[in-house]
Amino acid sequence: MSAAFDDWMKTVQAGSENDLSAFLPPATAIPTKLHAAMRYALLGGGKRVRPLLVYAAGALFGADAAILARAAAAVEMIHAYSLVHDDMPCMDDDELRRGKPTVHVAYDEATALLVGDALQSQAFLVLAEAAADANPVPLARLVAMLRLLAHASGSAGMCGGQAIDLDSVGISLTLEQLEQMHQLKTGALLRASVVLGALAGKQLEQDELDALNVYARAIGLAFQVVDDVLDATADSATLGKTAGKDAADNKPTYVSILGLEPSRALAEKLRLDAHAALAPFGDKALRLRELADLIVQRKA
Amino acid sequence: MSAAFDDWMKTVQAGSENDLSAFLPPATAIPTKLHAAMRYALLGGGKRVRPLLVYAAGALFGADAAILARAAAAVEMIHAYSLVHDDMPCMDDDELRRGKPTVHVAYDEATALLVGDALQSQAFLVLAEAAADANPVPLARLVAMLRLLAHASGSAGMCGGQAIDLDSVGISLTLEQLEQMHQLKTGALLRASVVLGALAGKQLEQDELDALNVYARAIGLAFQVVDDVLDATADSATLGKTAGKDAADNKPTYVSILGLEPSRALAEKLRLDAHAALAPFGDKALRLRELADLIVQRKA
Repeated sequence: MSAAFDDWMKTVQAGSENDLSAFLPPATAIPTKLHAAMRYALLGGGKRVRPLLVYAAGALFGADAAILARAAAAVEMIHAYSLVHDDMPCMDDDELRRGKPTVHVAYDEATALLVGDALQSQAFLVLAEAAADANPVPLARLVAMLRLLAHASGSAGMCGGQAIDLDSVGISLTLEQLEQMHQLKTGALLRASVVLGALAGKQLEQDELDALNVYARAIGLAFQVVDDVLDATADSATLGKTAGKDAADNKPTYVSILGLEPSRALAEKLRLDAHAALAPFGDKALRLRELADLIVQRKA
Repeated sequence: MSAAFDDWMKTVQAGSENDLSAFLPPATAIPTKLHAAMRYALLGGGKRVRPLLVYAAGALFGADAAILARAAAAVEMIHAYSLVHDDMPCMDDDELRRGKPTVHVAYDEATALLVGDALQSQAFLVLAEAAADANPVPLARLVAMLRLLAHASGSAGMCGGQAIDLDSVGISLTLEQLEQMHQLKTGALLRASVVLGALAGKQLEQDELDALNVYARAIGLAFQVVDDVLDATADSATLGKTAGKDAADNKPTYVSILGLEPSRALAEKLRLDAHAALAPFGDKALRLRELADLIVQRKA
């Protein structure tokens, strides 16, 4: 990673933290416990991969900062809500997330349920409120962005992937089935992040959309392969969440199906696929290229 | 209730059932268990009060049937998701809903969690997809409708009311606190139903919006007062859910604070307030008036 990329990343991460805080109701607003818990779930941590993708894709077509901030916050709220619900006892039953007690541990299960529900609503609210911005994105594109976010979040996207994941515990998946599950569970929202950032800049031509989808599919899959590698090799302190959980839960992973070294090789191949897909965009795709590198080469 | 109202109501209810089915992915789509459970949660029952309000308010300004169908389905999906999550063991722990086992009983808790999450996404998707209809509602109004739905669903609306409700178990609320809780928990989505139906027809003048909000606040409150009266007086078979639950859970209700007869008198006063608010709309508000009567005079 270049120093310039590192600076850019830190700027986006810090800016996202500020934006996310500003786009949430204050902790002093009634109901205060729910609002405090929403802030606990969303603020103060996370790699902000999805906001980084939104901003990097926004750079392709010179998107306005205000709509990028809303799109980045919206996808991060959807992501954060999914983590809160996934961590609950009836799902993955995790007690540690980003190095902190999960929401149902720090608060209680009912609050965690409502935090997730309210964060999802807030995501759509923050994006829909772009219509009231000073120089709003054209409304046809704003509605397309809202539609994309809803599609990527629901049963044909993230929730659908989570449902397939639940039904896969203890059974053996083929590589294709594992890929399909991850393309929904994490891939759909990562793809949405890339396309939202691009749509914030202009209405996309079909070939542009196709190229971005190839890129996003490659990094989405790479993200999961690397997650599985890290789950099998890193420790909980480094990850900020419980390591070795997949094997303990008897969940199919890339490492369990392919083995460790072939999984690492697959991640590297996907990184190169992602780079190739960006060729038509030239220099403006620099940050997207660097994010592909980051996703594959990260240590946590 | 007039026979004409009864016919209209049955037509809207049957139409909503068809629309809700059409606006959901088929049960054969992967993941099939999640999609089947979403259909189980949403279809085959319910009074469809919110769709009725959408259609009744749509009649005020001659709204197009296609956008009314989407708005009605969207609010009903939000309502249905909230029931699925509220029934879960970490919330109200209810086993019966609309005379059927609740989703977490018929399926499992993890599926119930995902059903609620996916139904919320689907609500925004169904509404956002109005932009692709043959004669779409103007996009500024569509975005306003999406924004309203998100606001009414989140921490400043339904989820916020649910959070206040949770924190109220076993403590004594004033009448004002009880009203504030219900104006969020059920009132926000009922108000949204009325305003969504009206917005489907035209951009609202401030005096029109004010009158509709007075109407919707009155019926929203009446709805809850009547719910409390029925919970205290009807049996489970009539209600299609567990009766006497509020008293058993030591939850504050209108009946516990005001007593039974004063609660009935309050509901009747609210019915008349709702009628008065509709005066400026003349004959076109007939269905809204009749719905106020229905809400107060229902037996389940």
